[in-house]
Amino acid sequence: MSKKIRLGILGGGGDSLIGVLHRIASFMNDNYQIVGAVFNPDFNANVDFAKEIDIPTNRVYKDFDTLIVEELKLPKEERIQVCTILTPNFLHFPMAKKLLENGFHVICEKPMTTTYEEAIILQETLKKAGTIFAVTYTYTGYPMVRQMREMIKDGALGTIQKVDVRYYQGWLNPIVHEKAKRSTTWRLDPEKAGLSCCMGDIGVHAFNMIEYTTGMQVKSLLADLNYLYEDNKMDIDGTALIRFNTNAKGVIRASQIATGEENGLAITIYGNKGGFRWEQENPNHLYVMSDDKPMQVYKPGHAYNSDLSLNGTKLPPGHPEGIFDSMANIYLGVAKAIRGEKYNDGEFPTMLDGVRGLSFIQSCIDSHNDGNTWIDIK
Amino acid sequence: MSKKIRLGILGGGGDSLIGVLHRIASFMNDNYQIVGAVFNPDFNANVDFAKEIDIPTNRVYKDFDTLIVEELKLPKEERIQVCTILTPNFLHFPMAKKLLENGFHVICEKPMTTTYEEAIILQETLKKAGTIFAVTYTYTGYPMVRQMREMIKDGALGTIQKVDVRYYQGWLNPIVHEKAKRSTTWRLDPEKAGLSCCMGDIGVHAFNMIEYTTGMQVKSLLADLNYLYEDNKMDIDGTALIRFNTNAKGVIRASQIATGEENGLAITIYGNKGGFRWEQENPNHLYVMSDDKPMQVYKPGHAYNSDLSLNGTKLPPGHPEGIFDSMANIYLGVAKAIRGEKYNDGEFPTMLDGVRGLSFIQSCIDSHNDGNTWIDIK
Amino acid sequence: MSKKIRLGILGGGGDSLIGVLHRIASFMNDNYQIVGAVFNPDFNANVDFAKEIDIPTNRVYKDFDTLIVEELKLPKEERIQVCTILTPNFLHFPMAKKLLENGFHVICEKPMTTTYEEAIILQETLKKAGTIFAVTYTYTGYPMVRQMREMIKDGALGTIQKVDVRYYQGWLNPIVHEKAKRSTTWRLDPEKAGLSCCMGDIGVHAFNMIEYTTGMQVKSLLADLNYLYEDNKMDIDGTALIRFNTNAKGVIRASQIATGEENGLAITIYGNKGGFRWEQENPNHLYVMSDDKPMQVYKPGHAYNSDLSLNGTKLPPGHPEGIFDSMANIYLGVAKAIRGEKYNDGEFPTMLDGVRGLSFIQSCIDSHNDGNTWIDIK
Amino acid sequence: MSKKIRLGILGGGGDSLIGVLHRIASFMNDNYQIVGAVFNPDFNANVDFAKEIDIPTNRVYKDFDTLIVEELKLPKEERIQVCTILTPNFLHFPMAKKLLENGFHVICEKPMTTTYEEAIILQETLKKAGTIFAVTYTYTGYPMVRQMREMIKDGALGTIQKVDVRYYQGWLNPIVHEKAKRSTTWRLDPEKAGLSCCMGDIGVHAFNMIEYTTGMQVKSLLADLNYLYEDNKMDIDGTALIRFNTNAKGVIRASQIATGEENGLAITIYGNKGGFRWEQENPNHLYVMSDDKPMQVYKPGHAYNSDLSLNGTKLPPGHPEGIFDSMANIYLGVAKAIRGEKYNDGEFPTMLDGVRGLSFIQSCIDSHNDGNTWIDIK
Repeated sequence: MSKKIRLGILGGGGDSLIGVLHRIASFMNDNYQIVGAVFNPDFNANVDFAKEIDIPTNRVYKDFDTLIVEELKLPKEERIQVCTILTPNFLHFPMAKKLLENGFHVICEKPMTTTYEEAIILQETLKKAGTIFAVTYTYTGYPMVRQMREMIKDGALGTIQKVDVRYYQGWLNPIVHEKAKRSTTWRLDPEKAGLSCCMGDIGVHAFNMIEYTTGMQVKSLLADLNYLYEDNKMDIDGTALIRFNTNAKGVIRASQIATGEENGLAITIYGNKGGFRWEQENPNHLYVMSDDKPMQVYKPGHAYNSDLSLNGTKLPPGHPEGIFDSMANIYLGVAKAIRGEKYNDGEFPTMLDGVRGLSFIQSCIDSHNDGNTWIDIK
Repeated sequence: MSKKIRLGILGGGGDSLIGVLHRIASFMNDNYQIVGAVFNPDFNANVDFAKEIDIPTNRVYKDFDTLIVEELKLPKEERIQVCTILTPNFLHFPMAKKLLENGFHVICEKPMTTTYEEAIILQETLKKAGTIFAVTYTYTGYPMVRQMREMIKDGALGTIQKVDVRYYQGWLNPIVHEKAKRSTTWRLDPEKAGLSCCMGDIGVHAFNMIEYTTGMQVKSLLADLNYLYEDNKMDIDGTALIRFNTNAKGVIRASQIATGEENGLAITIYGNKGGFRWEQENPNHLYVMSDDKPMQVYKPGHAYNSDLSLNGTKLPPGHPEGIFDSMANIYLGVAKAIRGEKYNDGEFPTMLDGVRGLSFIQSCIDSHNDGNTWIDIK
Repeated sequence: MSKKIRLGILGGGGDSLIGVLHRIASFMNDNYQIVGAVFNPDFNANVDFAKEIDIPTNRVYKDFDTLIVEELKLPKEERIQVCTILTPNFLHFPMAKKLLENGFHVICEKPMTTTYEEAIILQETLKKAGTIFAVTYTYTGYPMVRQMREMIKDGALGTIQKVDVRYYQGWLNPIVHEKAKRSTTWRLDPEKAGLSCCMGDIGVHAFNMIEYTTGMQVKSLLADLNYLYEDNKMDIDGTALIRFNTNAKGVIRASQIATGEENGLAITIYGNKGGFRWEQENPNHLYVMSDDKPMQVYKPGHAYNSDLSLNGTKLPPGHPEGIFDSMANIYLGVAKAIRGEKYNDGEFPTMLDGVRGLSFIQSCIDSHNDGNTWIDIK
Repeated sequence: MSKKIRLGILGGGGDSLIGVLHRIASFMNDNYQIVGAVFNPDFNANVDFAKEIDIPTNRVYKDFDTLIVEELKLPKEERIQVCTILTPNFLHFPMAKKLLENGFHVICEKPMTTTYEEAIILQETLKKAGTIFAVTYTYTGYPMVRQMREMIKDGALGTIQKVDVRYYQGWLNPIVHEKAKRSTTWRLDPEKAGLSCCMGDIGVHAFNMIEYTTGMQVKSLLADLNYLYEDNKMDIDGTALIRFNTNAKGVIRASQIATGEENGLAITIYGNKGGFRWEQENPNHLYVMSDDKPMQVYKPGHAYNSDLSLNGTKLPPGHPEGIFDSMANIYLGVAKAIRGEKYNDGEFPTMLDGVRGLSFIQSCIDSHNDGNTWIDIK
C-alpha cells in the first residue's frame, strides 16, 4: 500500500496558477498522492482536467458535498486524508468547516475566511476536530525566512525594537485608472473579494511575516488606506503603524499601485543586538547586520543554517530554489504532522496565523474608517 | 584679482567632519576661496586650525560679531561674499539672521533653525535682504536625485500616487541602551539638540527629498515616534504617514536605532506611468520602472541624463563620484546665483526648503504628542 | 489510459541529489509517470527506495540489462518510453547506447560519455535509432538563458565580438589541500571521474552556455589548467581562451578552488549592438546593455519575453522559480518531442551538445598537455 | 609661510578631465597648493586657464623647459616641490626624467612611459635623484582596495591560488566599427598611443591591481589580443593567462569593445583560507568569502578596517566617497613622503609599479605576436 498521504484538491483546475503551485508543492518531497478532487464546478471540465493531469476520474466529484459523502463511504485507509482548499475566498470558510467537522485535515489558501467572525468559528471547529489545519502563507516556507525565525528565537537580534515590512506590487495600476476596468475586476468588487483588496491580499502576508519571524504578536495598529477614486470601494494601497506589547514599534506598507513593482515583499527587523534584511524576489539571501561588524550574507544549505532552514533546502548551496520549494516546505511540515511525526513549530502556518490575519485585515479597515485611530488586534 | 567667490566659514574647525565636507565642496569646482573664518570659539584653536589648512590668519576672527564688524570695514570687493554656517544648531538662526541683515549671502547647514518660528523670521529677513540663501540638504546634489526631479517635472512618472522614503541609521543603538550614555549624548539632550533627534536630524532629509524630487508639497502628516526609554526625552525612531493635496499618499520612515544600518536614505516614488527607486549608499544608480517594460538603470554622465543631472557630474560614466561631489554641486549652484549667472531651480535648496523642514519637524512632534493625529504642515 | 509519458530511471536512488532534481523536474509539468527503474545496484536498496517514493516495485529491476529485457516483453503501450540516466559517468555511454539500440528515448546527465570517441559512437547510434536524445545541461532551462538565445537570434546584440563565461566553485578547496582527502575523493580519481575534473564537471557547462546562447560554435581553444599539487592528477581550475569562425574571441574560466564561491556560473556576451550579463545564482535577472541607453533588467514572465522564455515560466513576475523549474523546462521540451508535438530548437540540449562538450573537454586537456597551444574543437 | 606643498602641473588645462581629477585630489586633504604650471602648449590658453581657476599667472610658463629653468632660479623654499605630469603619454618620459634630474618630486599619470626601455632608464634616474616618484594608478587609492592589500598581508586569504581581474569598457564599440572613426581616433593610432591601446590603457590597471593587492609579482603571461579589423593596428580587447612563482594562476581580461560597459574594473582573489570580490563601480563594498561561513561585506570607515584603509576615508560609514577621494588618497601619501613623515608601503604606487606596468604591456604584445606563447615579465 502506498505510503503517500491521500490528498484531495478543491478548486485549482484548468489554468489556475494556484493549482499549479499547490500540485507541484505536494509532489516535491514525495509525500502526497492526489486521490480525489473537485477541480471545477462544471463536472465535465472537472473530469477533463483530471484526465489532463492524469488523476483517476472515479474520485473526481461533481461538487464538494458529494466529495464528503462519497469519501466517507470509503474505508479509512483509502479515504482522502487532507484536502487543499483553492476555491474563491468566500468558499474557504464553509468548506474548511465541513471538512474539519468530518475529520479531514485541511490545507487552506489564504485568506482563511472572509471575516474575522468566521475565523473564530473555524478556530472553535478545529479545537473540536483535533485534526491538522494549515494556512498557506507561502513565504514562510523560504529557508531564509525560517532562518530569521530561528535566529531571533536564539537571540541573535536581542530585543526587537523596530520592524518594517513592505509588500509592493504594481499590477492594479493599469486597471484602477480606467473606470471600465476598475468596476469589473473581481479583486475590486467587495461582493467577491470581501473586506479588503490590498490589505486582505498582500498586507496580510506582510503582517504574518512579522509575527512568523519575530515570534511576537502585534498588539495594535493605526492604518491609512488609499482608494484613489471615489467610486473605487476597495483599498489598493495602505500603510499601518504597528505597536507590540514591548516598546518596539513598526510599520507595514502595502500597495498594488506601486507601478512597475512585481511581487515586492521585503522585511527588515532590528533588535538591540543586530538587524535582518530579506527580500522575497531574492529569497536566498539574508542580510545580517550588527553595530560593529561587517554585514553577513546568509544563504541556504550551509552548515551554519538552522535545522528549520536546512529542512527546507534540497540541493547544495548556489542552486537556487524558489517559490515552489517554499510552498513544498509547508506541505512537508503538514505531512509530518499528519503522520504524527515530530515536527517543529514553524514548519507550517496554523489556524492561529489564519485568525490573526483576519483580525489584522479587519483592524486596518476599522482604523481607517474611524479616521486613522489605534485599534487593538484581537 | 581673483575670480573666486570670497567665502567665510563659521564653525567646522579641528576634526569637524562637516567642516571637511564643506571645505572640499567649496574647492571642487574652482569657485570659492576661503578668506575669513571663525572656525572655533577658542581663538588659539581658531588660528591654529587656519594655519593647519593654510588659510591666512589675519581674517580669522575671535568671534562671529567681530567677523561682521571687521568684514564690513573692508571694501566690498575684498569683503566676504558668502558665509557657510557650520556651528551648533542653536547658532544657525542668530548667525544667519545677522548675516542677511548685513548683506551677506548665506550657506546654512540644516536644520536651518531650531524652531519653526525662527524659520519664519528668517524667511522674512531674507525677503528684505534680497541676498542668496541656501540650506545644505546635501543629498539633493546627487546627479541621480536631480535626474528624478527633472524626469518627474517632464512627466516621466505621470501623476504621483505613492511616495515612500526611508532614512535608517543604527548609530544610536549602542548608545541608547545604556543610561549613562544616553543621558550624556548631545543629540539626546533637548537643550542642545532642539525639538527632535531622529526627525530633526534625518527625518527632515527624507521629507526634503520628497518635496525636492516630486515638486509637490506634503499637506499633512500623522506621526508616531519612539523614545524607547522613559527617561529618554528625544525621538530616536519614527514613522509619518503623509498626504498631499492630490489623492497621493505616502510614508516617511526614520530611525537611528536600525541596528547595523549606516546611512540608509532611500526613496521610492510611484506615479500612474512609472516608478523610481534610489538609495543614497549607491547613489549613482537610479532604477526606473514601468508597468510593462524592463526596469531601466539610469547612471550619471550619459547623454540621456537631464541637464540638471549632467551639470553635477565631472567625469565620464563609471567613475563613481560621491557625497563630496553632491555637496559640491550645491556650492556650484550657489556660486552661479551669487554671480548672477543663469541657474536652474533645483541647483540648491532654498529658504523655503528650510522653512518646510522646520514645519515638518514641528508637525511630527505635535502629531505624536497629540496622540498620533493628522497635522497640517504650515 | 494515462496520458503521461512512461519514464524509467537509472540511478538516482537513496540520498542522490541528482535523483531528487530529475524526479521533481519530471513531475512539475504533469507530463511524466515513473513506471520502471534501477535506482540502485543493490536490489534490496532498490526496492526499498521505490517503496519510499511510492513507485510500484514490480518494475524495479535488479539491473539495467534485466530492465531492457523485461520492458521489451511488455506491450509497447505499457513499456517505458524514455529512460533518464543518472548513474556514475562511466555508465552513461553503455546504457545510452543500449537504450537507443532498443528503441528507447534517452535523457542523459552530463557528461554524456567519458571520452570523445564514445560520444561519436553514440551520435552514430542515435542516427540509426531515430529516437529522442537529451543531455541535461540544466542551466539551459532557465527562462532568462532562453531569453538570451532568442534575443541574439533576433539580432539584439548585432554581431557577437566577445564572450566571457565564468564557472567558479569553492567546494574542492577544503579537500585538495589535504593529501588524505584529495587522494580519496572520487572526483579527483581519473579512474572514476574520467578525463577531467574541473573542465569536465563545470567548464563544460560554461562551454555549452556559450554555444547555446550565441548559436555560434567555438572553433578553437588554448587552455591552461591548474592541479596545485604534483600528486593531484586532475585539473581543479583552468582558463581557456577561445576563438570563433568570426573575429570574435572569448574566455572560459572555471575553478573548483575559488574559495567561498558556491555555484558561480555567469556569462557576459558583447556584440556590436549590445551586451548581456547573467548569473546563475540570480537566475531571474538578465542585464541588457547598449552603447547609449540605460541598462535594462529583463525578468521572466512578462509580455516582453520571448516565447521560448515564457514557455519556461509557470507563475507571474516576481515569483522566483529556480533550478528545479529550469530542469523541468528541459523535461517539458523532451515530452513535446516524444509526443511528436511541435517544439522549438533550444527546448532541450541534444546529442550535438553532448558531442561538443566531450570535444571541449578533450581539447582542454590536449591544449594544456601540449604546452598551452591552440587546438581545434572537432 | 604656507605649510602646503608647492605643486606644479604639467598638462591638464581647459576641459581636461584628468586635470580636474588631479586638481581636486590635490586640494582634498589640504596638503597642496598649485604654484606653477604649464597647462597648455599655447601660452595664451595657458594663462587664460590659470585665470579661470584662479592660479597666479606669474608662474604659468610658456613651456616645460622654461618652467625648469625659472623654478630653479627661485629659492628652494619657494620653488615647486613636486610636479604632476598630465601631458600626452609620449611626454611622460622626457618630462619625468628631467624633473628627477633637477631634484623635483614627480607624480606621473600612467602609462609612466611609452616603452619598457624608457621605464628602466627612468628607474635608474630616480635611483640617482633620490626624490619621491608616484605613478597614479588611481584605483589603488580606494579604501577597500587598500583593505584587501592589508588583509592579504595579514594572511586573511592564506596562500593565494587564483586571481582573476576584469577591466571591461565599451566606449570604443561605436568607434571601431566605422573606418572613418577608427582611423582618426588617437587611441587607435600607434604614433600617438604607443604600443597598445587596450592593454596599455586599462589592462595595465588590472595588472597593477593584482600586484598591489596580493603583494605578489606576476612571473609570466600568455596573451591573446583582438584587433577586430585588419586595418586597425591597436589591440582593443585581450585576455592574458598569468602565472606566479607559486603554483597560483590567474587571468586578466580587458576590453574596450564590451558594449554597454562603463568602467568595469573588478577583481576576485582566492586563497586557501578565503576569497575577495571587489568592483570599481561599487567601490565601497568588499565581499569576503570563506569555505564555511556567510560572506561578509566590508565597507569603509569602520573600526574593523585596516589603518591603510581608514587613512583613506574622511567621513563616517554610509557616506559614499568616490574616485576623487581615491586619487586624493594617493596625493595624501605622496605628501607624507615629501614631508618626510612616516607613511606605509602602499600609500602610493611607485616607480616599480610603473616599470612593472610597462613590462606587462610589452609582454602582452610580444606574447600575442609570437603566437600566444608564454613570456616572462621582466
